[in-house]
Amino acid sequence: MQLFANNPSLRAWLPAVANSDFPIQNLPFGVFVAADGQAHLATRLYDTLIDLHALAEAGFLAHWNFDISVLAQNTLNPFIALGKAATLALRDLVARILAEDNPVLRDNAAAQAKIFYPAAQAKMLMPLQVGDYTDFYSSREHATNVGIMFRDPANALLPNWLHMPIGYHGRASSIVVSGTPIVRPSGQLKLDADAPPTFGASVRLDFELEMAFVIGKKTAMSERVSTAEADDYIFGLALFNDWSARDIQQWEYVPLGPFLGKNFGSTISPWIVVLEALEPLRSATPAQSPEPLPYLQFEGLRNYDIQLQVAIQPKDSKEAYTVCNSNFKYMYWNMAQQLAHHTINGCNINIGDLLASGTISGATPDSFGSMLELAWRGTRPLTLGDGSQRKFINDHDNVILRGFGITADGIRIGFGTAEGEVLPARQD
Amino acid sequence: MQLFANNPSLRAWLPAVANSDFPIQNLPFGVFVAADGQAHLATRLYDTLIDLHALAEAGFLAHWNFDISVLAQNTLNPFIALGKAATLALRDLVARILAEDNPVLRDNAAAQAKIFYPAAQAKMLMPLQVGDYTDFYSSREHATNVGIMFRDPANALLPNWLHMPIGYHGRASSIVVSGTPIVRPSGQLKLDADAPPTFGASVRLDFELEMAFVIGKKTAMSERVSTAEADDYIFGLALFNDWSARDIQQWEYVPLGPFLGKNFGSTISPWIVVLEALEPLRSATPAQSPEPLPYLQFEGLRNYDIQLQVAIQPKDSKEAYTVCNSNFKYMYWNMAQQLAHHTINGCNINIGDLLASGTISGATPDSFGSMLELAWRGTRPLTLGDGSQRKFINDHDNVILRGFGITADGIRIGFGTAEGEVLPARQD
Repeated sequence: MQLFANNPSLRAWLPAVANSDFPIQNLPFGVFVAADGQAHLATRLYDTLIDLHALAEAGFLAHWNFDISVLAQNTLNPFIALGKAATLALRDLVARILAEDNPVLRDNAAAQAKIFYPAAQAKMLMPLQVGDYTDFYSSREHATNVGIMFRDPANALLPNWLHMPIGYHGRASSIVVSGTPIVRPSGQLKLDADAPPTFGASVRLDFELEMAFVIGKKTAMSERVSTAEADDYIFGLALFNDWSARDIQQWEYVPLGPFLGKNFGSTISPWIVVLEALEPLRSATPAQSPEPLPYLQFEGLRNYDIQLQVAIQPKDSKEAYTVCNSNFKYMYWNMAQQLAHHTINGCNINIGDLLASGTISGATPDSFGSMLELAWRGTRPLTLGDGSQRKFINDHDNVILRGFGITADGIRIGFGTAEGEVLPARQD
Repeated sequence: MQLFANNPSLRAWLPAVANSDFPIQNLPFGVFVAADGQAHLATRLYDTLIDLHALAEAGFLAHWNFDISVLAQNTLNPFIALGKAATLALRDLVARILAEDNPVLRDNAAAQAKIFYPAAQAKMLMPLQVGDYTDFYSSREHATNVGIMFRDPANALLPNWLHMPIGYHGRASSIVVSGTPIVRPSGQLKLDADAPPTFGASVRLDFELEMAFVIGKKTAMSERVSTAEADDYIFGLALFNDWSARDIQQWEYVPLGPFLGKNFGSTISPWIVVLEALEPLRSATPAQSPEPLPYLQFEGLRNYDIQLQVAIQPKDSKEAYTVCNSNFKYMYWNMAQQLAHHTINGCNINIGDLLASGTISGATPDSFGSMLELAWRGTRPLTLGDGSQRKFINDHDNVILRGFGITADGIRIGFGTAEGEVLPARQD
């Protein structure tokens, strides 16, 4: 499919904003609260949010042959359900309307007033109804770090890890959009190995730097999605913070995996960047040895070169201090392999399902995607730019994830932020 | 709340059916395909399905002060969302209409023809939209058996097990209603400890005998549900078969828990029995030692005396052979404790969420709730009534779960069946 919006020489008639994640070659999708209080679908160009339903109501989407009521919903799901032919056609149509040589909206200030919003002030909503959320564990560096810390340094990777993308089901109900505060969870803690567990607020609250992909096409039970077919089933990607209470998790997770240590909240970025916008950022998957079983083999460039960053903004601080620089391209298992693995047993997937990468760590200590690794289980506290130290996350810290890639043509395609402030634990 | 339908001396004007799970004191809720092809909510008395929407359309629910459009939906969720005041009022109203001294429907054959269906021939639908599904592991006998087989017989229970109801998130998308075939899953198998994993169909396909409860009232993130409040949040219960591919599970589950070994399918019974119908079946929770932390302590009778049975009906067999007799009352951790634990960290719950018990095993070998335990990891094959042997489940076996309790007044309150035939694995 030749996509108009992907043309690197395309320019918009809105003034360019330096270092913006949202040039005309991006045009992600989200949901926001419009001036009338209703939820509408939107896209974004630089710092301008574009109300897609208002755009349709004003007559600019007459060539889009689908029911525009999907643009006035409180999730992207019905829109995504129309299929890529519809969603990518809309993205292209918006790009044509915004292209510098197109006067239809450019020269219609009255229409712009109804359609444009300052993105920074828009109230964004949770963009998806997530039926099922799966979290993988696909960064070799992360899995190795965890293995060294908690298990056997000499055999840090468990026997199955190099044979399949290990994953587990997470909690869908507590995935919230960027900007939603996260209350520090309480639960059972086993702080003293020789004493019974106690009840209290987590003292090892952590972030996990992840990317998540959104399912765009459903399957029936017993169907499979091959690695070659995977892209057809991926609508787009988002930043994802899989908040983790390490102390709760450590006491509960054997043998059935993480539960209350994770399900108190996860934060997703409000803008879903369509897979096709990331096409110029494709990169090679790291060499896989041993060779995976045939159903996990793939062709082509299946990773994505997306620079990722985590920053902590302490209470009352105007500055956010970067604590991690990582990259989505480091993933050992790629999304196509994750999806092929997830469905090889016939597990069905639905539109809006989220599949997250797992913590994305690189090889160097500054690229580790969690405080657990950055401060090495509390043994090497980080010093932030304001001089304060962190082993884990403090109350009122705002944790900010960012991600973007630079194409060969020098175009920056990004995700904005996925952020959340930690509020103090309940006192009862 | 005094419930008319719970009156043990109440009799219906429909002829009683011996050993039926569905006397007038039960009146569960389900969803079926009505004569016009539309999904309607229903209840059941003995072998008669009662179309609740048709009952309303015929004017019999005029005293029910709620929107009857919830009775013409394809899930119970909107009905449940009305709250117990509405759902229990409807159940009571139906009981009044069916009570032997009430002529309004009894003497109106024309209305009956529009409202009644033979239950055995009705096409039942998946009764819920399940947002999140959680599976616990709350039978001490089951956890002990698994620990003996796979870990250390001397320390069969893991250190955390007696301190909290261990649970994990399962797959919501692949929960299907009784009668839906289950295709044998394929995946990675590690059949030889010294050789790499291979790809193939599971050769250790198992059932797990469970009960599940349905959330009837939602919470916001950071709210908690105490053990004392739990009943207000439980709409009802169902039978649940957590199909498990033991070979896939064993190779994948360390460290993040079960994934493809479980998420290919789970079977739920079509009738949700409201918690209040089970009131006369309350029984004591087994003694808990060590004493749980305060948030897990509870008062009163919080288990339920529900006899459970699993039968296998081989291909072309008219008979089903019972392989397990267990009881829901054996559960070490009760539902109130499970819900209090699940929400203690602020994890939010939604209407239609399912929380399953985990495999329900008793103390004696004939009460074990899975083939893994019944045939002790394949070392003690079961001989069925037709002379055939089973270590696990064969293709075309129909696995049938049943459950019912007998009240002190001799009334049988039951769940019907949750059954599913195993179809052969895909050949590609």
